[in-house]
Amino acid sequence: MEVLKVAARSNPNSVAGALVGVLREKGGVEIQAVGAGALNQAIKAVTIARGFVAPRGLDIVCIPAFVDIEIDGQERTAVKLIIEPRAAGINGLSEKLNLEPVTAR
Amino acid sequence: MEVLKVAARSNPNSVAGALVGVLREKGGVEIQAVGAGALNQAIKAVTIARGFVAPRGLDIVCIPAFVDIEIDGQERTAVKLIIEPRAAGINGLSEKLNLEPVTAR
Repeated sequence: MEVLKVAARSNPNSVAGALVGVLREKGGVEIQAVGAGALNQAIKAVTIARGFVAPRGLDIVCIPAFVDIEIDGQERTAVKLIIEPRAAGINGLSEKLNLEPVTAR
Repeated sequence: MEVLKVAARSNPNSVAGALVGVLREKGGVEIQAVGAGALNQAIKAVTIARGFVAPRGLDIVCIPAFVDIEIDGQERTAVKLIIEPRAAGINGLSEKLNLEPVTAR
């Protein structure tokens, strides 16, 4: 699954856009965040992304997990958020869903 | 839905225990967190709670949302995490699931 790395300075709107893009392509996406500030931006991004997919009748769920990563030779514990469309969460499937953006006509 | 308020100093293990308790009783629970530190503890708690319910073959998903709250007369934006068993997320139901703790015999 594709991994989006989010930092404390990441713009939640930009992350939300990227998140929906990958979700649309791949059916699921992982967000990785190290530290409280980064996780805060990650959760904001997921919340904003819910608004992007809601007009299609879709919802997003996130499943948090710990992950050990190495930064500058130091072992750190990061949080990864596995993001899936709510519907695709039924059987743990990551089936491709049509997440075309809604455009006014 | 019952609301658990989590602070930056909350113990994630304790919150996880409370979370599973309410989930078992009510089928769903909301966690409210103000600030990055509090949200960090909340997500840790959800991650730990996944370990508590996993032996029963259950998983937990969280759905983040913004919520406006008032603290000392000041309007603040908090994050609420709607926590549901993954199975119950299928139809957006919050049906009661048997989340009895696993005990060794």
